[in-house]
Amino acid sequence: MEISELGEFGLIERLAKDIEIKNEGTLQGIGDDCAVLAPTEGMRTVVTTDLLVEGVHFDLTYVPLQHLGYKAVMVNLSDVFAMNAQPRQLTVSLAISSKFCVEDIEALYDGMRKACAKWGVDIVGGDTTASLTGLCISITAIGEARPEDIVLRSGARPNDLICVSGNLGAAYMGLQLLEREKVIYNEQAASLQKQLSEAKAKGDSQRVAVLNSQLSTLSQPDFSGREYLLERQLKPEARGDIIAALRQAGIHPTSMMDISDGLSSELMHICKESRTGCRVYEERLPLDYQTAAMAEELNLNVSTCALNGGEDYELLFTVPLELNDAVQALEDVRVVGYITDADKGCALITRDGGEFALKAQGWNPLKKD
Amino acid sequence: MEISELGEFGLIERLAKDIEIKNEGTLQGIGDDCAVLAPTEGMRTVVTTDLLVEGVHFDLTYVPLQHLGYKAVMVNLSDVFAMNAQPRQLTVSLAISSKFCVEDIEALYDGMRKACAKWGVDIVGGDTTASLTGLCISITAIGEARPEDIVLRSGARPNDLICVSGNLGAAYMGLQLLEREKVIYNEQAASLQKQLSEAKAKGDSQRVAVLNSQLSTLSQPDFSGREYLLERQLKPEARGDIIAALRQAGIHPTSMMDISDGLSSELMHICKESRTGCRVYEERLPLDYQTAAMAEELNLNVSTCALNGGEDYELLFTVPLELNDAVQALEDVRVVGYITDADKGCALITRDGGEFALKAQGWNPLKKD
Repeated sequence: MEISELGEFGLIERLAKDIEIKNEGTLQGIGDDCAVLAPTEGMRTVVTTDLLVEGVHFDLTYVPLQHLGYKAVMVNLSDVFAMNAQPRQLTVSLAISSKFCVEDIEALYDGMRKACAKWGVDIVGGDTTASLTGLCISITAIGEARPEDIVLRSGARPNDLICVSGNLGAAYMGLQLLEREKVIYNEQAASLQKQLSEAKAKGDSQRVAVLNSQLSTLSQPDFSGREYLLERQLKPEARGDIIAALRQAGIHPTSMMDISDGLSSELMHICKESRTGCRVYEERLPLDYQTAAMAEELNLNVSTCALNGGEDYELLFTVPLELNDAVQALEDVRVVGYITDADKGCALITRDGGEFALKAQGWNPLKKD
Repeated sequence: MEISELGEFGLIERLAKDIEIKNEGTLQGIGDDCAVLAPTEGMRTVVTTDLLVEGVHFDLTYVPLQHLGYKAVMVNLSDVFAMNAQPRQLTVSLAISSKFCVEDIEALYDGMRKACAKWGVDIVGGDTTASLTGLCISITAIGEARPEDIVLRSGARPNDLICVSGNLGAAYMGLQLLEREKVIYNEQAASLQKQLSEAKAKGDSQRVAVLNSQLSTLSQPDFSGREYLLERQLKPEARGDIIAALRQAGIHPTSMMDISDGLSSELMHICKESRTGCRVYEERLPLDYQTAAMAEELNLNVSTCALNGGEDYELLFTVPLELNDAVQALEDVRVVGYITDADKGCALITRDGGEFALKAQGWNPLKKD
């Protein structure tokens, strides 16, 4: 169904009808000038926002809309968790070009609803409008935390341990894989198209039929053995489970942020805000087997991928040295280095003991290469 | 300066340096994963968001970036006031194409800061990223109100008076004026360009010089006597003053919303949410002299413009009949009709006593014409 048949209000009504409010603190959701929330007494509110642009942040030739919706929500929830807070509500604004139909937007919303359901978050409002080209998604997430629980980037102190959840570089490898297959697919399709034109020009109807059939069944890439990399790229998970585990273990990080632009870049943010330096050990970087295998296949340095590949949405945090045993006991968390005085700078200690200054080579859409 | 010279973090640093935090409740602004806010005890939080897309919501050929920033903020503050709440914080996300330079974005931010300063609102976060085409602005505003003060769209009751602040249709007329002048300017420029090509082809250097001079001084349109219409279109003001006046007068509206898509459309929202009908008197529609004069010049029905022209950002609210004297005493507020039972429908009473069903012909970017 074309979106123009429904118009803005019709589309909003259709999308809103499946949205259930789960939080007591959500008093008024979609449908008025504003959403109305009742903050829990004594709690702080945290707010984060992200803008995703087609062609810059995502490529719809290989990202299903449902996954895109899921990811768009998760990246915002990840920021809320990175404050050691619980996400409660979010608003969703979409600018939609005429190439999308109602079912597309429903698929996108379906993914967003699933991500929200996972963490008990309410969609409370937004804006739905037209765009001249492509899709634009703006999400704002609101969460809350007790004042004493909130963790900023600025609290790291010398000798603190640097911890990372999960593993790094897999989402970046997933992207490389998708980009490579896209190129191969496009080349094959272009070659078949060319042969088809020639066959048509010659009036060779038998060959036209064969080529048409080849085009229509042009094989989807085989990603077997690489599923984990794709999942990390297409369907990242915000690490609310780590936040819960930290709470359970009574660990209060001194600083924390989520890893969206690569470990190097994020560590440098923490060190800058905390006025410290750091040392990270290459041999301690957490890697999945598939990440390492793919890096080898693509002839990339896997440590560089782990340090600078973006979109991991893992948590990076620091804890006082005396909590070493406590963090070692946590599942899926690894100590990768330690905080130093600022004058030591930020450096990577390589496997052979070399020391290299960290560089923020993370993804930066506004920067010249 | 090109944005790519600074990159995302450099640009954010530059934009953030002039941002002062004014609210006690803003504990942490730009610079962490989330902003941190301390809601005032016992207050409700209200949240609204808007997405503005170049070519859909604004045309940079006649909208200065500073005005655009001002307006982008004001339309969100208008939604907060429409809940009878006070705006406190906002987040700003921008997607910027390579045609913009650092100074452009600073001008945009300057306008946003001015609008925020007017109402004591803090810019607490956002996202700044690239776009393939044009500019995209997403703003989320957060406000607060005492629970008993909040006014929804759903509280109108039969016999309530329908009130409107300011006057209607002027912003729409401003847009018509700008569009007309744009067409004239483009036609003149195209005609001169054509003559120039011909003169060049003939090698008539004297004529080339004359035409080049004409092109460079191609007159900017004369808007004298129409300044108010332009101001309403380019630099709208959210009516926080009306909210303050209502409070001062002890008037608690039964329903309220802001008029962004035209009075007809908004009234129908209120009636739908409140399950009522309404009667509006054509002769009571508040009009500015310039709006009426411009409508006549363009051969448009001024009442239609007032009912369906968008972007007025005035407040539409209903009050119980017994508050008639109190609202009549308010400056810049006019009673335009009354609420009826739902079965009466929504209608306009024309000057000659005719009754016509209201239609939501307001601006709807996703709807077919």
